[in-house]
Amino acid sequence: MSRKVAVIGLGHVGATVAFTLFTHAIADELVLLDKNEKKCEAEWGDLRDTLARNDYYVNVKWGDWNELKDTDVVITAFGDVAATIKTGDRFAEFPINTANAKEVGQKIKETGFNGVIINISNPCDVVTSILQKVTGLPRNQVFGTGTFLDTARMQRVIGEKFGQDPHNVEGYVLGEHGSSQFTAWSTVRINNRSAMDLFSKEERDVLSDVPNKNSMKVGFGKGYTCYAVSTCAVRLARAVFSNAHYYGPTSCYVESVGTYIGYPAVVGKDGIEEVFELDLNEDEKKRLNASADKLKTNLAKLGPEYLG
Amino acid sequence: MSRKVAVIGLGHVGATVAFTLFTHAIADELVLLDKNEKKCEAEWGDLRDTLARNDYYVNVKWGDWNELKDTDVVITAFGDVAATIKTGDRFAEFPINTANAKEVGQKIKETGFNGVIINISNPCDVVTSILQKVTGLPRNQVFGTGTFLDTARMQRVIGEKFGQDPHNVEGYVLGEHGSSQFTAWSTVRINNRSAMDLFSKEERDVLSDVPNKNSMKVGFGKGYTCYAVSTCAVRLARAVFSNAHYYGPTSCYVESVGTYIGYPAVVGKDGIEEVFELDLNEDEKKRLNASADKLKTNLAKLGPEYLG
Amino acid sequence: MSRKVAVIGLGHVGATVAFTLFTHAIADELVLLDKNEKKCEAEWGDLRDTLARNDYYVNVKWGDWNELKDTDVVITAFGDVAATIKTGDRFAEFPINTANAKEVGQKIKETGFNGVIINISNPCDVVTSILQKVTGLPRNQVFGTGTFLDTARMQRVIGEKFGQDPHNVEGYVLGEHGSSQFTAWSTVRINNRSAMDLFSKEERDVLSDVPNKNSMKVGFGKGYTCYAVSTCAVRLARAVFSNAHYYGPTSCYVESVGTYIGYPAVVGKDGIEEVFELDLNEDEKKRLNASADKLKTNLAKLGPEYLG
Amino acid sequence: MSRKVAVIGLGHVGATVAFTLFTHAIADELVLLDKNEKKCEAEWGDLRDTLARNDYYVNVKWGDWNELKDTDVVITAFGDVAATIKTGDRFAEFPINTANAKEVGQKIKETGFNGVIINISNPCDVVTSILQKVTGLPRNQVFGTGTFLDTARMQRVIGEKFGQDPHNVEGYVLGEHGSSQFTAWSTVRINNRSAMDLFSKEERDVLSDVPNKNSMKVGFGKGYTCYAVSTCAVRLARAVFSNAHYYGPTSCYVESVGTYIGYPAVVGKDGIEEVFELDLNEDEKKRLNASADKLKTNLAKLGPEYLG
Repeated sequence: MSRKVAVIGLGHVGATVAFTLFTHAIADELVLLDKNEKKCEAEWGDLRDTLARNDYYVNVKWGDWNELKDTDVVITAFGDVAATIKTGDRFAEFPINTANAKEVGQKIKETGFNGVIINISNPCDVVTSILQKVTGLPRNQVFGTGTFLDTARMQRVIGEKFGQDPHNVEGYVLGEHGSSQFTAWSTVRINNRSAMDLFSKEERDVLSDVPNKNSMKVGFGKGYTCYAVSTCAVRLARAVFSNAHYYGPTSCYVESVGTYIGYPAVVGKDGIEEVFELDLNEDEKKRLNASADKLKTNLAKLGPEYLG
Repeated sequence: MSRKVAVIGLGHVGATVAFTLFTHAIADELVLLDKNEKKCEAEWGDLRDTLARNDYYVNVKWGDWNELKDTDVVITAFGDVAATIKTGDRFAEFPINTANAKEVGQKIKETGFNGVIINISNPCDVVTSILQKVTGLPRNQVFGTGTFLDTARMQRVIGEKFGQDPHNVEGYVLGEHGSSQFTAWSTVRINNRSAMDLFSKEERDVLSDVPNKNSMKVGFGKGYTCYAVSTCAVRLARAVFSNAHYYGPTSCYVESVGTYIGYPAVVGKDGIEEVFELDLNEDEKKRLNASADKLKTNLAKLGPEYLG
Repeated sequence: MSRKVAVIGLGHVGATVAFTLFTHAIADELVLLDKNEKKCEAEWGDLRDTLARNDYYVNVKWGDWNELKDTDVVITAFGDVAATIKTGDRFAEFPINTANAKEVGQKIKETGFNGVIINISNPCDVVTSILQKVTGLPRNQVFGTGTFLDTARMQRVIGEKFGQDPHNVEGYVLGEHGSSQFTAWSTVRINNRSAMDLFSKEERDVLSDVPNKNSMKVGFGKGYTCYAVSTCAVRLARAVFSNAHYYGPTSCYVESVGTYIGYPAVVGKDGIEEVFELDLNEDEKKRLNASADKLKTNLAKLGPEYLG
Repeated sequence: MSRKVAVIGLGHVGATVAFTLFTHAIADELVLLDKNEKKCEAEWGDLRDTLARNDYYVNVKWGDWNELKDTDVVITAFGDVAATIKTGDRFAEFPINTANAKEVGQKIKETGFNGVIINISNPCDVVTSILQKVTGLPRNQVFGTGTFLDTARMQRVIGEKFGQDPHNVEGYVLGEHGSSQFTAWSTVRINNRSAMDLFSKEERDVLSDVPNKNSMKVGFGKGYTCYAVSTCAVRLARAVFSNAHYYGPTSCYVESVGTYIGYPAVVGKDGIEEVFELDLNEDEKKRLNASADKLKTNLAKLGPEYLG
């Protein structure tokens, strides 16, 4: 009965997630949580003021962590985007957000929450790992937006190249949601033609960097990015609520590389339902491993209990 | 063929308007315009990156004013919200936004635009007046969100009072979208009962100030307000596109008081189709006139050509 | 977690309800039930074939009554519309549908269902009564679309009269969803003006019959009506899922007249949350009582246990 | 300004198309046309009665062919589905619908219509051909739902096989929307794995027939199919309105086989924007040619002017 979602962290991303859930009738109950109580109450007030012009009624609440007890989906979007924008590297948020993740994970745990966590906070794969470890939830119940966003950006880039709808583009960006990510060209197809045939090695190398560069350009231009990532998070929440068994690249735990990382998986009501081994080429395997190594090295800095 | 909308001014409000038009399949073509070209391009980029996760394709463009030539609806959302938040008075934006309105109005005019303008910029009634004068468009084709927003906030307040959906509340906030606005209690009904019977004079006086106070609380808490007002603007744009003949309070030109002001009107494809005289009580008439006088006094400061 | 809806009776109305819940992302799980198993499976198959082109995934099932155990909302739409169309009177379905209601109510009861029933089957108020009695569910958890539909039809008629959006029209059609229904003109307003002032007694008498006549014209023309009533039922289901405390006329139990009848009430997650006494005029009271008497007289034919 | 759609033929399919356009805010103006004027007016009345409960206002009209003059998209859904259901072969509608197509095409032509026609009527590829010939519109402006529907059915079948969302399945059913259609397995992928690797030849042969068999089962069970095909048509209309350059299999004119046939193409505001040659295997080419031959042979029966 009813879909209950909590958003933790109400910066531009968290607020946009809340607004999207609210205006698209995805949430029946929406809980807003943030350290900054004034901000949190303000977002609540802005949504309450929206109700009379919204097609759907949504029961919005704020500030009470105990609401998590019977919440179905938590979306985490805390962080310090200014650090990312200043450096152009999402790892700039590592110190602050690993601390945040431990604190938030602990608070979630204490409520007895037993739903699905979809993490957006950066560095996405690292924060997702910590949230899983600290909450003690099964791995499948905790995953991140990861390269679901970068893949959307890649689809746009390839779509633009052909003057077509990005929905026409299939395939995945894999690895860290960050600088070591890469487009797995062997998986990419447009109009049923393989990107390996459509583009030369040189073209692929150039195109490969464009999605992340585009995102940084957006970040530099508006101080943050919010629309694409929020829409990604909401789409994953939809797959959870409807138990869609939807297949897409998220930050999920991949056994073969021993860490959370951007990789396609089946998403349903319990979160990650299944991860299939992709048939990658040697270069792609190497890049995936390198990306995983980067993530594991950084997680190891937090202590051995955050690994594996 | 196709719905074409331009948003001028891409602060938090303008960007939220664009995002809402984009994710709800209201716009087929969406043109983003702002003095700050980097910001404008960044919003465009964030929406382009959203496409692959959006249910609907939207053709988003930025920066080219000539696109207005065949645009159907322009939504204006320029301004300096910091001034409003600092003072708690939307008239703090008067100096900067009257200048902006003249400049933007002139630019719109030069493109040959002949659609409908829905203005959000504050002080809303004043800016709407200027845009109409400078563009030379017929009065019906230029209107503002005005007290459509304040009415939504009043509906929320009364709804909360009864623990009910704000859609159950009818009636209007009239006058300036600003400090001289007032709830016209003789028009307000909930559950088919008149607010005049439900509340004492004292209760009404207290309740009357809550909607605007709530909005300022939101403004102080998050630095601006965006969700309620954007949703209002988009709802009015929907009434224009579908030629709904929808009746709601907007900032429209009211003959009896001789100025643009928050007052209910019928909205359709040509903008304001008709304004009916409300049967207000003496106190309400007095307050409406006082609010109109405030607006006219301020418009007169800009020169006699902005009056009437 | 997740919204689970069952539709019982898959004629044109039930199928349209299912399709609407499916394409608007209202249901996460959708259970189709009908005596005619081939029809039921066919509707299921048609929806399954729709999935790849639908924006939302929905888990559609058919034929298993045990699914009701954890279903949140049941929408009943069984019946023999041909009888209604032939006679122009929904009471023509009385013999068949009172039998159906007993059988369906019993089957629902046996599953242990403890959610909300929204009944569409005609004669709507009678069938709703029976379903409540037979299932033994509290009265608030069982209600019908009743004059929610007739009110929409009245809004259309008055809207057309003024060339306006029917959303501009407030007020209610009360009484039986059938020939003894009536527009309670003292409740009707358009553009904040009372229908009592806008129309003469003669005009009101003429207008009063138009909504139901329109519906019969639709019924004669296409053999049934389905779109308006299905949209009404889905809107009420939305109010239940989001716990909206939405105020609208449904077929609910009204203490003062001692029967289920079309009358406005507050709808939330437990169904009917509250019924407020309307301030009707003498003529309206008389008509409401007459309509209630008709309903009670007919219920009494089924045995005293169906009354009260 | 505004999206204007006409639906010609208001059987179950046409009516469902109209209802979908209406409830999803896709159409601003909706024109209903059918020989059976009573049916046509009844569908109009049912939609008018829906307005007060619909989130969006839509201007619905009926019966006036002159409305086509400035209509953007015409969706044709005339026919005699009983013939198809009786025989299990869409070609049973050939005699009646080729006559209908000539008549409807002529009427469309006379209005000066110059938008896009999306044809659903069966046999879909043949009727689409005739409509193009008779209206004299450029080939790109006339296309059919064709195997866009069969492909959705194939996606469902493969999705069910893996317990997954059909959106995870890529690839096409090609050829006639009828008995000579076939799944082009070399184009089909699920979870980025080729169907050629996932299924043996025997499994593919069995699976290949399931989509069409499923559709006939639906047809036998409910007397027609309507939800999947209507949703397909509306999705194509959306691609036209938003100029999406969406790539999907429709009934379009394919130069290499010299006829309208189910084959993927890019769909935008002018209809079919581009057809790319697929890299089919020998068996698939043979089947495509055989299907094309069947269609051309039948078109030839109507006279040489309908060929090519």
